[in-house]
Amino acid sequence: MPAANTLDETHDPALRSWVDSANLPEADFPVQNLPFGRFIRAYPEGAASAPALGVAIGDHILDLSAAAPLMGGARLLNTAWSQLAAGDLKGYMQSAPAIRRAVRVALSRALRVGSELADNLRPHLVPMAQAAMVMPCAIGDYTDFYTGIHHARAVGQLFRPDQPLLPNYKWVPIGYHGRSSSIVVSDTPVVRPNGQKPVSDGIPVLGPSQRLDYELELGAFVAQGNPQGQPVTMAQAEQHLFGVCLLNDWSARDLQAWEYQPLGPFLAKNFATSISPWIVTMEALAPFRRPFVRDPGDPSPLPYLHSQSNSDAGAIAVDLTVSLQTEAMRSDGLAPAELSQSEYPSSAYWTLAQLVAHHTVGGCNLQSGDLFGTGTLSGPSAQQAGSLLELSQGGRVPFTLPNGEQRSFLQDGDSVVMQGRCRASGFVSISLGQVRGTVQAAPAGV
Amino acid sequence: MPAANTLDETHDPALRSWVDSANLPEADFPVQNLPFGRFIRAYPEGAASAPALGVAIGDHILDLSAAAPLMGGARLLNTAWSQLAAGDLKGYMQSAPAIRRAVRVALSRALRVGSELADNLRPHLVPMAQAAMVMPCAIGDYTDFYTGIHHARAVGQLFRPDQPLLPNYKWVPIGYHGRSSSIVVSDTPVVRPNGQKPVSDGIPVLGPSQRLDYELELGAFVAQGNPQGQPVTMAQAEQHLFGVCLLNDWSARDLQAWEYQPLGPFLAKNFATSISPWIVTMEALAPFRRPFVRDPGDPSPLPYLHSQSNSDAGAIAVDLTVSLQTEAMRSDGLAPAELSQSEYPSSAYWTLAQLVAHHTVGGCNLQSGDLFGTGTLSGPSAQQAGSLLELSQGGRVPFTLPNGEQRSFLQDGDSVVMQGRCRASGFVSISLGQVRGTVQAAPAGV
Repeated sequence: MPAANTLDETHDPALRSWVDSANLPEADFPVQNLPFGRFIRAYPEGAASAPALGVAIGDHILDLSAAAPLMGGARLLNTAWSQLAAGDLKGYMQSAPAIRRAVRVALSRALRVGSELADNLRPHLVPMAQAAMVMPCAIGDYTDFYTGIHHARAVGQLFRPDQPLLPNYKWVPIGYHGRSSSIVVSDTPVVRPNGQKPVSDGIPVLGPSQRLDYELELGAFVAQGNPQGQPVTMAQAEQHLFGVCLLNDWSARDLQAWEYQPLGPFLAKNFATSISPWIVTMEALAPFRRPFVRDPGDPSPLPYLHSQSNSDAGAIAVDLTVSLQTEAMRSDGLAPAELSQSEYPSSAYWTLAQLVAHHTVGGCNLQSGDLFGTGTLSGPSAQQAGSLLELSQGGRVPFTLPNGEQRSFLQDGDSVVMQGRCRASGFVSISLGQVRGTVQAAPAGV
Repeated sequence: MPAANTLDETHDPALRSWVDSANLPEADFPVQNLPFGRFIRAYPEGAASAPALGVAIGDHILDLSAAAPLMGGARLLNTAWSQLAAGDLKGYMQSAPAIRRAVRVALSRALRVGSELADNLRPHLVPMAQAAMVMPCAIGDYTDFYTGIHHARAVGQLFRPDQPLLPNYKWVPIGYHGRSSSIVVSDTPVVRPNGQKPVSDGIPVLGPSQRLDYELELGAFVAQGNPQGQPVTMAQAEQHLFGVCLLNDWSARDLQAWEYQPLGPFLAKNFATSISPWIVTMEALAPFRRPFVRDPGDPSPLPYLHSQSNSDAGAIAVDLTVSLQTEAMRSDGLAPAELSQSEYPSSAYWTLAQLVAHHTVGGCNLQSGDLFGTGTLSGPSAQQAGSLLELSQGGRVPFTLPNGEQRSFLQDGDSVVMQGRCRASGFVSISLGQVRGTVQAAPAGV
């Protein structure tokens, strides 16, 4: 059993925090969560702080630039606290798993009711309402996988009704390299891309994408890396995972259809990818680990993609939703309308550990802070679709929103909101927070 | 006419350097070249210096960590010299084009015969034989294009004899995102990847690639970036280019064939990409700019990919060669045997400026130090092939080396050497140097 799956005192459902908002029912960030993020504090006089790392607790952020030096504890943790205080999340991600677990225990003890540090730490709590979240770290390489089997089948059905899943799908964790520079944190506006679109006589024109879509994914951050030429085995894979977030892989379907042969998606994806600001650590996810079960008819994975611990607890249970708020809904004060629900991991054919093992089997080196996307996590039914391409059946069947508006693909002013929550009987549920993005009009006159 | 194409005193063929080796006929690095690289100096006692930026001159390197502070000159250049002294090539890449041109003029004056700085700079010349080259900068994002039309046609012919070029080829500069972390500098050994290979009954096995190949490409480094959502026009594109190098896009053809549908190459490419250590700047390439000419039957590029200056001088003339030295040849003291010659830009369907404009047209943000690959630069004839896939006709027709050995694909111990040189009547020719890599055996027991 990988160490990251181990339950400890930090998962005790009886724990309550001296930050009251963390104890509310269904709080996103109870003391059992403790995700890491980076924020800028806005001061009333209009100034802003430098970016700092923080831990979410209730509706506040514990500012680690000030709080980490107060944590004390074992000398073994000194480097970790220094990295966290300095804002060096990538450095911290390289810590040994035992260090990361010990930091979590220390943060839990510091933030729970009865902590001796409460009075010292209280001045370093920042209300989330006074903070702007920024990217948690600079992402070196971003890899987007295609583990959502229901999505792969549904999309394949649109293009290849006789063979929705390609012959390699159940053998190879399909993935491709994405664009790192254009990954943005939640609430960053997303500009509709211009691009080439084929017209009826086979000659393309340049113009705004008319088939702009979202894709509901989880993101996973790499902890320690591996040296080039030295694969990571399934037995080691979990310790190379740092934590997860929500990810919206914005996609321009019309650009994609024209450009993707023979080398895959390019401009259809690289204008923007949005992630939620808080990284929920693998340690926090321990209560939500599940056996990873394949259908009986599916082939056994090749040995380099198999381990008993992965079969026993390789999966993570996350309930996911996608909601949409149009500009008209926003004007009318209407909340985002839920478009779909799906659940991880039943939506995925491969676990995160298998993605690590596959990515490195040929010798590719991972680095701390690299990001994986899972691919679109649609459920088996049409109501569980993780993209508009599926919900609107390739754009052919528009759907109606509660206020009467119709959509096939995204319009300017539309906000897409993705949320995720982990639940397990006998444990306090924790949230991944949300990733939200609003579509802005394409630049004119390109 | 973009400023980078402008001839100035630094291109004068009469210039000679006080570093004698720079004046030899066909020297790689005459005073007209002045490429940037990063090196580590090895001292006789076994110690090594920290990495520093340098400029190649003859068979020496001018150590900019020591030399840049001595350059003096206009105050406008102070920041640039500080960045170069500090080893911050990415910072320097963000300089305005006028600054980069002025730095080049200052370096040329400092290194030419008659320089008043010669005595001060001479102590900071490091013999190349006492230096190890390292990566010139950390590469944020790496994009590999597919501009080599003869390669695209030859490879397409192998897989789709009835339609070698796909319908989008002459409209879209096809490209995909590559892996940044595994880009290595010349002379770094390349470990043969293990990966999934389909066997006859449709079930794959894991094992070493049996169809390991090289691809002859040019690399281009991005100078200034662009903000996300703000495309770079053709009129601006040249100033976003910093310089070029040689690039070997190692490719595992058997892994690629099995994995690449539907999202493109992944493990078949991401185990390693090798680049030459010296970045030859766009300013140095001015004498070798050429009109960019399309076949009369080819469609006009869409307006966002067209500019008069690109038609007039968008191309760069580079003569390219690939050579192979097997382990047996090395043991017998035989030099690498030349496998093919080709020439840029006649091998390419798009210019570098067009790649910048296309990459950003949807809003994707480029960053200083990003790397583009051109794609495989094969000539129109079989003898000008830039990959073994083409030379061996898909592996079906092995070729014979001068010592009698045969090859279809690369064997362990094979060294691949790529070289490039720019020539123009009335100017001193300059070299891109070389990129060399030797194949090591795949790890056992994966």
